[in-house]
Amino acid sequence: MRSDQTNSLTGADLLLALDGSGPMRDQLARAVRAAVREGRLAAGAALPPSRALAESLGVSRWVVTEAYGELVAEGVLDARTGSATRVAQGAWPVQGVGGTPPVLPATARSQVASSLSAASSTGVPADGRPGTTVVPPATSPPPPSGRLRYDLGPGVADLRHLPRQAWARAAHDAVMAASPSDLLGAHPLGEPGLRAALAARLTVSRAVVAAPDDVVVTHGSSDGVARVARALVAAGHRALLVEDPGWPVLRDVARRAGLEPVPVPVDSDGVDTDALVALAERTGARAALVTPAHQFPSGGVLAPARREALVRWARDVDGVVLEDDYDAEFRYDRRPVAALQGLAPDRVVLVGSLSKTLAPAFGTGWLVVAARRWAGLDPSVPPPPVLHQLTFAALVADGSYDRHLRAARTRYRRRRTALLAALAAALPELRVSGVAAGLHAVLALPDGADEQRVVRLAAQRQVHVVAAGRYHVVPDGHPPALVLGYGNLVDAVLPEAVDRLADAVRAEVHTR
Amino acid sequence: MRSDQTNSLTGADLLLALDGSGPMRDQLARAVRAAVREGRLAAGAALPPSRALAESLGVSRWVVTEAYGELVAEGVLDARTGSATRVAQGAWPVQGVGGTPPVLPATARSQVASSLSAASSTGVPADGRPGTTVVPPATSPPPPSGRLRYDLGPGVADLRHLPRQAWARAAHDAVMAASPSDLLGAHPLGEPGLRAALAARLTVSRAVVAAPDDVVVTHGSSDGVARVARALVAAGHRALLVEDPGWPVLRDVARRAGLEPVPVPVDSDGVDTDALVALAERTGARAALVTPAHQFPSGGVLAPARREALVRWARDVDGVVLEDDYDAEFRYDRRPVAALQGLAPDRVVLVGSLSKTLAPAFGTGWLVVAARRWAGLDPSVPPPPVLHQLTFAALVADGSYDRHLRAARTRYRRRRTALLAALAAALPELRVSGVAAGLHAVLALPDGADEQRVVRLAAQRQVHVVAAGRYHVVPDGHPPALVLGYGNLVDAVLPEAVDRLADAVRAEVHTR
Repeated sequence: MRSDQTNSLTGADLLLALDGSGPMRDQLARAVRAAVREGRLAAGAALPPSRALAESLGVSRWVVTEAYGELVAEGVLDARTGSATRVAQGAWPVQGVGGTPPVLPATARSQVASSLSAASSTGVPADGRPGTTVVPPATSPPPPSGRLRYDLGPGVADLRHLPRQAWARAAHDAVMAASPSDLLGAHPLGEPGLRAALAARLTVSRAVVAAPDDVVVTHGSSDGVARVARALVAAGHRALLVEDPGWPVLRDVARRAGLEPVPVPVDSDGVDTDALVALAERTGARAALVTPAHQFPSGGVLAPARREALVRWARDVDGVVLEDDYDAEFRYDRRPVAALQGLAPDRVVLVGSLSKTLAPAFGTGWLVVAARRWAGLDPSVPPPPVLHQLTFAALVADGSYDRHLRAARTRYRRRRTALLAALAAALPELRVSGVAAGLHAVLALPDGADEQRVVRLAAQRQVHVVAAGRYHVVPDGHPPALVLGYGNLVDAVLPEAVDRLADAVRAEVHTR
Repeated sequence: MRSDQTNSLTGADLLLALDGSGPMRDQLARAVRAAVREGRLAAGAALPPSRALAESLGVSRWVVTEAYGELVAEGVLDARTGSATRVAQGAWPVQGVGGTPPVLPATARSQVASSLSAASSTGVPADGRPGTTVVPPATSPPPPSGRLRYDLGPGVADLRHLPRQAWARAAHDAVMAASPSDLLGAHPLGEPGLRAALAARLTVSRAVVAAPDDVVVTHGSSDGVARVARALVAAGHRALLVEDPGWPVLRDVARRAGLEPVPVPVDSDGVDTDALVALAERTGARAALVTPAHQFPSGGVLAPARREALVRWARDVDGVVLEDDYDAEFRYDRRPVAALQGLAPDRVVLVGSLSKTLAPAFGTGWLVVAARRWAGLDPSVPPPPVLHQLTFAALVADGSYDRHLRAARTRYRRRRTALLAALAAALPELRVSGVAAGLHAVLALPDGADEQRVVRLAAQRQVHVVAAGRYHVVPDGHPPALVLGYGNLVDAVLPEAVDRLADAVRAEVHTR
């Protein structure tokens, strides 16, 4: 069937590019992205109406509208009421990547995978089943003393629901199955099996464009950013544009590597790209560290036009965008926006880690550095131990990692909803901002409130919260707010935690 | 009871310093070392006759003669026939370490230890039981193709006898028991529990002087040497004295870090310290990388007078000795000579790893850097993942690691004996050199033989051997020899491997 739109894409065209991997919605979105990326669909080209395309593909119309919606959010497509959905003006062919479709490698270690699958059906209870109370293992020591009872500090995943049994099984299978060549050598950029597993996962879950060779295994996000930063310094870079507010650890990492952070303001649509371009021009900075999927801490998603502007800027100045994808696996109201990397693999380095999906103790992260730019990465950092990498690869290969993420998503969504409801009841006059995502929310305090004082008053009430100022380059001058983390908050104490926090806020408001 | 020697040590004096840990022989040796180190026993002081001291301590005379023998080999004591055993002229009080006795911390994670002990008695067969045929796990893939059938390549441990089950149990217990603070943080120098376990182990097994804070967890020997080398470069060093022949990987590591290797000749007593001092003077080098316990590859043990000379030189020039302790756990004819570090913790950095005791895939090593000199180490290398470190700590804490080493020692001793017997039968005219230690032996070839040609002729016969030239800075000009590794040699094929090697040697000798 042909669409009656002129200059439009036919279902047959799209069908040719469907890769048969995963849900149709994802296949369709990937096919469109690839067509745009490879220049087969030009800016302004109209796509078939969703009904027509759905018929042509033999799928429900919902599949098409979901895929279109996702691509609109990414800035690939442009939708106006009463008009055809078109390829956005900001969708560009990628130079130097050419027509090679993203490789979807067969996940490695199927042997491990099948034995893990067998192990996981032996009646061992799954970790983190939503809706059940999970008791920490009996051998787990009590949390360190001196910590406050109600922990609303941001940046910590749910330590009571880690897939400990699954990890132990994966570790067992990895060490039992390790071959002589596994045992004798470590690949400096990471074990091939893990790189393949990560490339496959990120291609599906984050719409990243990555062959296994484009993935570098790191020790975590700080290590990843540090290594890219040192490569940039070696290439002559002296400054790094950073979001303000932003995660101070990575600012410090960049500074230690020799890049002076240049703060760029953010708003509810993510980093202000007009300001970024102006600051880049003023300072000569040609590299930027951003959080497009979920700005930390303000909680916005980078707007489609800004995604486009950011990549255009990077191309114009021969620059690099570091995409800190820290909590992109956790979006609750819709599917996560695809990684920026997928639209500009030649310009964007994706930085990911297990710190938020599992915990820092898992000590593993990844870079996606297409076009083998990793050749410039500092070789003096050895990779994580081969056995550790094989363990994580086994966890991914048998689906345990994705099962954990799904369970965690459900848990966090529920907890976020409960937190917002409790805040609305206890502090109805205050606004909570940020999209439904991640492990934190931002609570705006009344004008003129002293956020540091609220933090102290909360601590007196056994509640740990962090002032927004902690994430600003200049710690004051911004509207007062708190960053509330719910990742490791115990559900049972959530109402009490919010009541105590509300009491602290009122104490500050009434005594100033 | 008092000895009738004047100026001698009484048993009561020694008894005061015995620490009650481990065999009496070790306690006694440690007590004497400590007394010498702390200046309580001056150079030239006579020790009680072994019989008198044994009576005084209530131990067998054997205990005392063993301890004395060990200390003579280390250069702490001096024994001449017909005269008293005395503190050697080369035994010196250590500056800056003072009277603090070595700390013997209670091993950490006793909780893990006890649960591991329970697990290990559940009937799971122990890995690597000597004398039994151990079949590789069924899931283990075949070795990579293209390798020669008879592997006499050096530097590889027995991959068929790794403590895989014990490691899997340790990994299970580590992840199940990890506390919130374990999960959230990594100590940049290594997990405190592992550092304590390593300090305790090395104090006992290698007579190292180390508090937990003196141990730095690394990714292995290359990482350890690289980090020390970068610290030396930052402190103004430009050259590193290295043994010639020696392990080329570490020479390359030093060069990449910015230290020019300065080769120093070795003989059957280890590195030639006279030559070292002269070369140091000529080049200005103030740092040396040596293998005192078992020179690689020539197989000598550093002679007592040279141990002394090396440390004296380091003190004289305000220098540093890197002690590569790569295979010191494996000595077959007697107990290993104590680490040089124990006599001069202010000058010697010990470098160790799991690469030879387990395999490179375990990706873990350690530095012993007393007096907190680690403050100068490059902080850009993240430590191995916390969970991996906790796994190794559990393996040490429950005794599995030491059990593995004991079993491996028995296995390697037997294999070495078999190898030497087979070589003596097949090539009676050739000499094998090196003490009974480690995972390799050196086979001298007939004068004028072309060692490279023998390597090729052996390969044609499916035997992998390495020419000594590979380890020399200048690959020729030395007497022709082969370095034969038996670490990963399959016992059943050993006679055939030697027969084929002998055939290759004869082919070279007869055709030149």
